[in-house]
Amino acid sequence: MVFILTPDAPEARVSEFIKAWEDRGFSTILSKGTVHSAVCLIGDTKEVDLDHVVETTDIVSYGKRVTEPYKAVNRTVHPEDTIVKIGDWSIGQGTFTVIAGPCSVEGKEQLLDVARAVKASGARLLRGGAFKPRTSPYAFQGMKEEGLALLKMARAETGLPVVSEIMNQTQAELFEDIDVVQIGARNMQNFDLLKVVGQMKKPVLLKRGLSSTLEELMMSAEYIMSSGNPNVILCERGIRTFETATRNTLDLSAVVVLKQKTHLPVVVDPSHGTGIRSLVAPMSKAALAVGADGLIVEVHNDPAKALSDGAQSLDPGQFDGLMGELRARAAIEQRRI
Amino acid sequence: MVFILTPDAPEARVSEFIKAWEDRGFSTILSKGTVHSAVCLIGDTKEVDLDHVVETTDIVSYGKRVTEPYKAVNRTVHPEDTIVKIGDWSIGQGTFTVIAGPCSVEGKEQLLDVARAVKASGARLLRGGAFKPRTSPYAFQGMKEEGLALLKMARAETGLPVVSEIMNQTQAELFEDIDVVQIGARNMQNFDLLKVVGQMKKPVLLKRGLSSTLEELMMSAEYIMSSGNPNVILCERGIRTFETATRNTLDLSAVVVLKQKTHLPVVVDPSHGTGIRSLVAPMSKAALAVGADGLIVEVHNDPAKALSDGAQSLDPGQFDGLMGELRARAAIEQRRI
Amino acid sequence: MVFILTPDAPEARVSEFIKAWEDRGFSTILSKGTVHSAVCLIGDTKEVDLDHVVETTDIVSYGKRVTEPYKAVNRTVHPEDTIVKIGDWSIGQGTFTVIAGPCSVEGKEQLLDVARAVKASGARLLRGGAFKPRTSPYAFQGMKEEGLALLKMARAETGLPVVSEIMNQTQAELFEDIDVVQIGARNMQNFDLLKVVGQMKKPVLLKRGLSSTLEELMMSAEYIMSSGNPNVILCERGIRTFETATRNTLDLSAVVVLKQKTHLPVVVDPSHGTGIRSLVAPMSKAALAVGADGLIVEVHNDPAKALSDGAQSLDPGQFDGLMGELRARAAIEQRRI
Amino acid sequence: MVFILTPDAPEARVSEFIKAWEDRGFSTILSKGTVHSAVCLIGDTKEVDLDHVVETTDIVSYGKRVTEPYKAVNRTVHPEDTIVKIGDWSIGQGTFTVIAGPCSVEGKEQLLDVARAVKASGARLLRGGAFKPRTSPYAFQGMKEEGLALLKMARAETGLPVVSEIMNQTQAELFEDIDVVQIGARNMQNFDLLKVVGQMKKPVLLKRGLSSTLEELMMSAEYIMSSGNPNVILCERGIRTFETATRNTLDLSAVVVLKQKTHLPVVVDPSHGTGIRSLVAPMSKAALAVGADGLIVEVHNDPAKALSDGAQSLDPGQFDGLMGELRARAAIEQRRI
Repeated sequence: MVFILTPDAPEARVSEFIKAWEDRGFSTILSKGTVHSAVCLIGDTKEVDLDHVVETTDIVSYGKRVTEPYKAVNRTVHPEDTIVKIGDWSIGQGTFTVIAGPCSVEGKEQLLDVARAVKASGARLLRGGAFKPRTSPYAFQGMKEEGLALLKMARAETGLPVVSEIMNQTQAELFEDIDVVQIGARNMQNFDLLKVVGQMKKPVLLKRGLSSTLEELMMSAEYIMSSGNPNVILCERGIRTFETATRNTLDLSAVVVLKQKTHLPVVVDPSHGTGIRSLVAPMSKAALAVGADGLIVEVHNDPAKALSDGAQSLDPGQFDGLMGELRARAAIEQRRI
Repeated sequence: MVFILTPDAPEARVSEFIKAWEDRGFSTILSKGTVHSAVCLIGDTKEVDLDHVVETTDIVSYGKRVTEPYKAVNRTVHPEDTIVKIGDWSIGQGTFTVIAGPCSVEGKEQLLDVARAVKASGARLLRGGAFKPRTSPYAFQGMKEEGLALLKMARAETGLPVVSEIMNQTQAELFEDIDVVQIGARNMQNFDLLKVVGQMKKPVLLKRGLSSTLEELMMSAEYIMSSGNPNVILCERGIRTFETATRNTLDLSAVVVLKQKTHLPVVVDPSHGTGIRSLVAPMSKAALAVGADGLIVEVHNDPAKALSDGAQSLDPGQFDGLMGELRARAAIEQRRI
Repeated sequence: MVFILTPDAPEARVSEFIKAWEDRGFSTILSKGTVHSAVCLIGDTKEVDLDHVVETTDIVSYGKRVTEPYKAVNRTVHPEDTIVKIGDWSIGQGTFTVIAGPCSVEGKEQLLDVARAVKASGARLLRGGAFKPRTSPYAFQGMKEEGLALLKMARAETGLPVVSEIMNQTQAELFEDIDVVQIGARNMQNFDLLKVVGQMKKPVLLKRGLSSTLEELMMSAEYIMSSGNPNVILCERGIRTFETATRNTLDLSAVVVLKQKTHLPVVVDPSHGTGIRSLVAPMSKAALAVGADGLIVEVHNDPAKALSDGAQSLDPGQFDGLMGELRARAAIEQRRI
Repeated sequence: MVFILTPDAPEARVSEFIKAWEDRGFSTILSKGTVHSAVCLIGDTKEVDLDHVVETTDIVSYGKRVTEPYKAVNRTVHPEDTIVKIGDWSIGQGTFTVIAGPCSVEGKEQLLDVARAVKASGARLLRGGAFKPRTSPYAFQGMKEEGLALLKMARAETGLPVVSEIMNQTQAELFEDIDVVQIGARNMQNFDLLKVVGQMKKPVLLKRGLSSTLEELMMSAEYIMSSGNPNVILCERGIRTFETATRNTLDLSAVVVLKQKTHLPVVVDPSHGTGIRSLVAPMSKAALAVGADGLIVEVHNDPAKALSDGAQSLDPGQFDGLMGELRARAAIEQRRI
């Protein structure tokens, strides 16, 4: 059950209202909008007389029952789009944010080369894996702390905020100075990790699991939001199906469903989503057309020698071509790139 | 193994060349291009000395081994795009063809209403099911012959060529005056039906099966082409996955893969692909952006009362809005709608 | 809605009862049991007062609403197990029927060798494909009519009834003297073919489609039963999943679900279900343990040279070993082999 | 590349042999068998002359190239079955080990009731979740440390060793006195957690991920073994497919494949694998027949009131019936229960 508050509800009254519900045994989530805030009740609301509450509480504008299991991420609870600020850039309505960089941070020169190139082409954030989840224990596991340090150096050099994947909840401190923490597909239901990033004060890029339903993805976002962090960016990155022509099946309809059901921004990963370099550009254009809020794209200065995911990485020239194609299409979608 | 012929190879010499191979026990496919034609050998070509053939046959420009199991549909064998002509319109390079109409033909008034509306909005072909494959024997099975007659009447009235689904190989005669025969997803591997439409002299719209790999789809197209009919249009219409938020998962990356590996046009069915009306427009725009050659969209004059698939049908107003959005984006993709 | 009749309901009264419903616009299915027969109404039964009918009709013992979309195959409508008689053998409760033979009939000697061997080892029916559905138009398509003739010859020689796959509805006459017609996985939703075999007077072995839900399989059986043929045997043969270690994923839980929800016998195809010879025996034993009514197993006299599916075929020695293992386990499951 | 050692190879010589390889830059895994031990090299072995090593090293009996990416778990490297000892019971060849207990530990009385009942019926280990991974942050998350304490109390009372799920790597200490730590399906590729349990000195029950291939499961076991813990038990618990009649599709063929490719014991979870109480017994019997080394089954003293997974839990009477059925079938499979 959610109560949408009047625009001018005084903070003290809101706190009282929340406390009253908590005294009755409910958990609450306060969802702040730019105009309307809302208070969502978690618990057995069957006995609550919604109309009575609305009529007798002047700071409540109206109320609704929320039948979906996801509450804080639900567009019913928070009708406006969430806008996630990162430095002086905003992910959300009105922008199409391209995050680019190598799959793995492999060294200073590699990272700086790629960072300068994607910055020049128009990327807004730099991605790079420092801790790498790999199927094989014998594969390259990432440069770890050193990789994070290189990311910060590349940020200092280019001004691009950085995105990197956190692999377990003991690493929260290491990521304190990383701009966006990423939860990888394999960790989408690592609930203890979700709770930890829910307590961090920074945006979280949450990737859909390989075989997660959209409802499960929304429930994982709910873990983060209900732990206190409203800055969640959802990411469609391809699901596992019977088809073997592509590495995964990139589900672009997920973008539309997620934007209808939640208020969170949604970005698309065409690199993991297809696993094939020549599919990245067309699927990126399709992601823009379908209404995504951005992309996360793998770019490597020498894909043939990449320590991971070379087959799906663009080189800087290809990325620059893609950015040109996207800019040409962004205006018609009323997006700033 | 394929031999690409010289542009000026005389027909008689080509026939001799083909006959010589058939005398040696090979099957052959003659693939006609606007500039280069090609002769593809089917059979055990391991012992054939390709270089020797190229050097000693003046009508052969060059040769290649074709390792994929699909030959006639293979872009290696026929590097140019196939263009399928329907009346004075062409599906293929340079156009984005919108096929629209009701899921089922339900009556004269319904069909004419929809046909006039989609024509006015810019559709190039009219779709309508007369024989309906339904999961339940107790569901509406279509108007059958009467439905085909209504389609022809609607064509006479609007000038739109018509597309309808053939359900078995005894119906070939009934479809003689239908412009495009459709093979439905459930019949994609009904090989006897594929052979029959391979002998028809009209374009075939071949839908991907619910759980068919792209290679299987290409092999089914190969059945049609190797039976003599080069006018095959492939159709991505969503695959079956674990996700239940949408009726199927529309695999737009399939469009790119199919256009890379074959020379056939590829259209997208966003109606069956999603099963949800509000997803049709965004996925249609994405299909244009990804490089599809067109759409097949369900439109009903009164979706709430449709005898089949109402939940995924647009009403004429929604369809008109979609066409406006597509027109605005077609120029940038260098497509005529 | 189904009305279970009293054991002694006179045939004439039953016919009257049925006619009365049909006069009111309902379709009916008369389901004959060994003790109780039942009349199932198809149509909009919301307005029918079930209790009133039961109270006022002395040949009706009781009635039930059937909420599932499948009616004739529903165990609610026909609580006893259906027993399918083939010659002097019965498939159904109390037996575990092993159907064995080559994937394809390849010649007289091959078929007779295999037929004699599987008979000696205890198979009850002989399988063999005469018309072969193949992904590639260039692959062996079966011996066709000649293959059917060889099957009949093998039957004459060994006394084993024969099972073979029908590929389209024009072949009904060709299969008149075949004991059991098989509908292959790719044709499970070839509804016109289902209607035709529904009019044949012989048992039908209906294979589950590669990505068919159990409800879809039951609805396809409903097509056959509602066309007049009650002798349907369901077959689980593996479904398509993301796993590539096996050709398909054999879903043994399907056997239990199907036997709970329908009254039809269910057999298992461990050969297609796994695609790997060494998995056939363990999965066959598991099929017996889980409650299946039998198996359909591929056996070839020289698997390495088989024209189709050699990798999953047992040789006669392996099949004999399997039969020994099954016999040792049949007693405990109270099954005759 | 693996070198199988002679039965009498002195330990000092083995250490020298290993050190020599590590000096050359290879990682090594020493795999101890009851007769033959083996040394597996990890790294780029293309340049190693296998025959030369075998000929010139008297403690090496023979060598093989291991082409699969999994080494330590590979049956080629360790041909004998691994037997995992837990107290005075052994999981592995010759036994069929039934692990039973509630999904969640819910309280002292509940746990003791169930523990006594399953012990009386013949279970060898007690399962019970203390930390629960739940899709919703608002669902019961387990009794946590208190749950672990109750498990130990139930062990003291019944003598049954206990199995419980570890959810993250900070919990290793908490599980020091738990007999078997379980890695849940959602954590199968939580690689940091795998490394931590790889350093624990106790058996690990590793569940297959919801959409993990068997190769990925084996690679996750490789993480544990290559971190030093050889006591890994694999668990098939159902995979995610398009089918909705069951909660998951239990893949019994996986048991056979895993036992062919690895030397590790494999158990089956028919409770999560089906999600339906009435399917648990038949699938358990099938698991025994297919060659599994045991089961992990959910049993609750009052399933209707269970805080999690009640619909798939047996009550003690049903479990006792199942054990009777299994005992009747164990002899024929030459298994002790």
